[in-house]
Amino acid sequence: MPESLPPDSVGLVTPQTIAFEEPLTLACGQTLGRYDLVVETYGTLNADASNAVLICHALSGHHHAAGYHSPEDRKPGWWDSCIGPGKPIDTNRFFVVSLNNLGGCNGSTGPMSLNPDTDRPYGPDFPVITVADWVHSQARLADHLGITQWAAVVGGSLGGMQALQWSLTYPDRLRHAVVIASTPRLTAQNIAFNEVARKAITSDPDFHNGRYHDYGTLPRRGLMLARMVGHITYLSDASMGEKFGRELRDQAFKFGYDVEFQVESYLQYQGERFSESFDANTYLLMTRALDYFDPAYDFDNNLSEALKQARCEFLVLSFSTDWRFTPARSEELVNAMIAARRKVSYAEIDAPWGHDAFLIPTPRYTDAFGAYMSRVAREVNA
Amino acid sequence: MPESLPPDSVGLVTPQTIAFEEPLTLACGQTLGRYDLVVETYGTLNADASNAVLICHALSGHHHAAGYHSPEDRKPGWWDSCIGPGKPIDTNRFFVVSLNNLGGCNGSTGPMSLNPDTDRPYGPDFPVITVADWVHSQARLADHLGITQWAAVVGGSLGGMQALQWSLTYPDRLRHAVVIASTPRLTAQNIAFNEVARKAITSDPDFHNGRYHDYGTLPRRGLMLARMVGHITYLSDASMGEKFGRELRDQAFKFGYDVEFQVESYLQYQGERFSESFDANTYLLMTRALDYFDPAYDFDNNLSEALKQARCEFLVLSFSTDWRFTPARSEELVNAMIAARRKVSYAEIDAPWGHDAFLIPTPRYTDAFGAYMSRVAREVNA
Repeated sequence: MPESLPPDSVGLVTPQTIAFEEPLTLACGQTLGRYDLVVETYGTLNADASNAVLICHALSGHHHAAGYHSPEDRKPGWWDSCIGPGKPIDTNRFFVVSLNNLGGCNGSTGPMSLNPDTDRPYGPDFPVITVADWVHSQARLADHLGITQWAAVVGGSLGGMQALQWSLTYPDRLRHAVVIASTPRLTAQNIAFNEVARKAITSDPDFHNGRYHDYGTLPRRGLMLARMVGHITYLSDASMGEKFGRELRDQAFKFGYDVEFQVESYLQYQGERFSESFDANTYLLMTRALDYFDPAYDFDNNLSEALKQARCEFLVLSFSTDWRFTPARSEELVNAMIAARRKVSYAEIDAPWGHDAFLIPTPRYTDAFGAYMSRVAREVNA
Repeated sequence: MPESLPPDSVGLVTPQTIAFEEPLTLACGQTLGRYDLVVETYGTLNADASNAVLICHALSGHHHAAGYHSPEDRKPGWWDSCIGPGKPIDTNRFFVVSLNNLGGCNGSTGPMSLNPDTDRPYGPDFPVITVADWVHSQARLADHLGITQWAAVVGGSLGGMQALQWSLTYPDRLRHAVVIASTPRLTAQNIAFNEVARKAITSDPDFHNGRYHDYGTLPRRGLMLARMVGHITYLSDASMGEKFGRELRDQAFKFGYDVEFQVESYLQYQGERFSESFDANTYLLMTRALDYFDPAYDFDNNLSEALKQARCEFLVLSFSTDWRFTPARSEELVNAMIAARRKVSYAEIDAPWGHDAFLIPTPRYTDAFGAYMSRVAREVNA
């Protein structure tokens, strides 16, 4: 934490664990008898509970979206750039709810949790979770918090898929869905990258079919490789070039296979750090949730037919250099919304950082996002 | 081989091994006391040896570029679509030379060869090879074959880098350089993908620091992952989409982590097949040759200054959907050639197959390539 807290920070926050004892039946057919969700909230819920905003996280995200857990924290939550007093998701106006999704590894029930049937960690026995399953579990969280209708459900990447799914599954329970750097479904190339990541994990001899905890091991190599591949797809070619170019780690070529270029060192560091902190079974689960997401599937692949269920208004944002989920994919979504006669605002933001741009506060992005959220706030009773 | 040989096939071919006993000092400072190169030739060398064309291979390529080794072969050589009677590299007019590069794993001296100092395979002790080293070894091959000057040096991808390097290292020993789907140097993103591939191999417990042969193992998992990553970068998003879409392997979602989508099955198959047939140390070596290639490096990063050494004419071809080495990278090369006042023809070919398009005979590609090579042939004495 900086020595003096910036005025636009939500400050020190404390996560809470909420227990849900009612069984939840999942898309895969299995039922979770009970589950916990770890949640943070920022701002104050107003009298008629009309100012609540749900934040949905992406692949490796969690509940800690803004502020600091302790004065010793070096970094704030993952979306601190967009959540706080005066920021696009203005905590002076909104009551913001951020959770760790079911299947996660940051405190919510997931593969690392104890399986009540066996009294051992679920590990690979934790059921496959879909985006729709998350939305159901988040609806129960809304019930618990006394929120009948979200002012907005907001997310980037996989989080944007959840915002979109909310509009289809619970059309009357949100007024706005904000879908950032996302896509209505993965392409074959997207799935292929996920498959490489999964194969890196599952082929690691320390993976032990997902029961690594039983063996006192962790599939660190696999998780590191998975993260390295993922990381390349989060950045643009140009931004990697700007950040690292072809700069050498040392003064001259070493003519060997150890780290030679700065970009190699960076990727390895990112991969290694991630492999220490993230659960491999959760990584598999999150990538599969991405693969399976396809709201048009049940509508004969007609996305606009699917979108006719929606009642909310939409903001869709894409980034010019995002090659993971290109602006074209957002436009596909926007065109389907228009065909379905839904209200939608769309902007492609010119930004050099690839997919990661949704985490980086540039004026064009925060202005467009902030202007929309101001409108959402004006509809709310003070 | 098809039951009756197509008239535009070079037919049955037999590789030969050529021994070079004169030591070769490499860019890394090490010296190879001797080496073998495995070579195939197609067509007939004319009286004044003016009709010779050198084919340079890419990362996983080899000497077998055209024709069949036996009637039982199911597939011809890797560039059979472009080499043969009446094809762009017309074997009625040209004497075509194709080799397995130094450091390869298809018969030329490389990590799998015996190290004369130890009487055991070189393995990880095989020196790092650069594109310039290959060009030196290929010049000796030209000497051996009595070829003072190539009519053309031709290659795609890493092969195109060799053609370009030829024009700089031996400007008087070629009349044309054909640089297809290539780049004057890798970007940080290109290096990053290579690094993921290398890390997949070197972190495989069966790699044993490159001495897997001593342990009776092969780093199959690592090599499979490396190939899977590579393969994604060879195809375009659109062509993967066209080939596989989101098609499921079975009728319905299985909600698990085994193969679910066709694209996963395809990638795994490609990866597994490759891991049975390719040497891991050679894979490391080839990717490093790609990383190091940077002819502008010694000219203060001024590519056109570097190109002022060249005397030959150039054909540069790129493919619209190649995102590994985009048309923009070819244009960078072409612009530097123009700035250096070199003669260059350039075409961006509209083709949906990504980087792999250089292996696929489409009319616009083979027409442009063939027209240029016809001109090269007309300059040759009959």
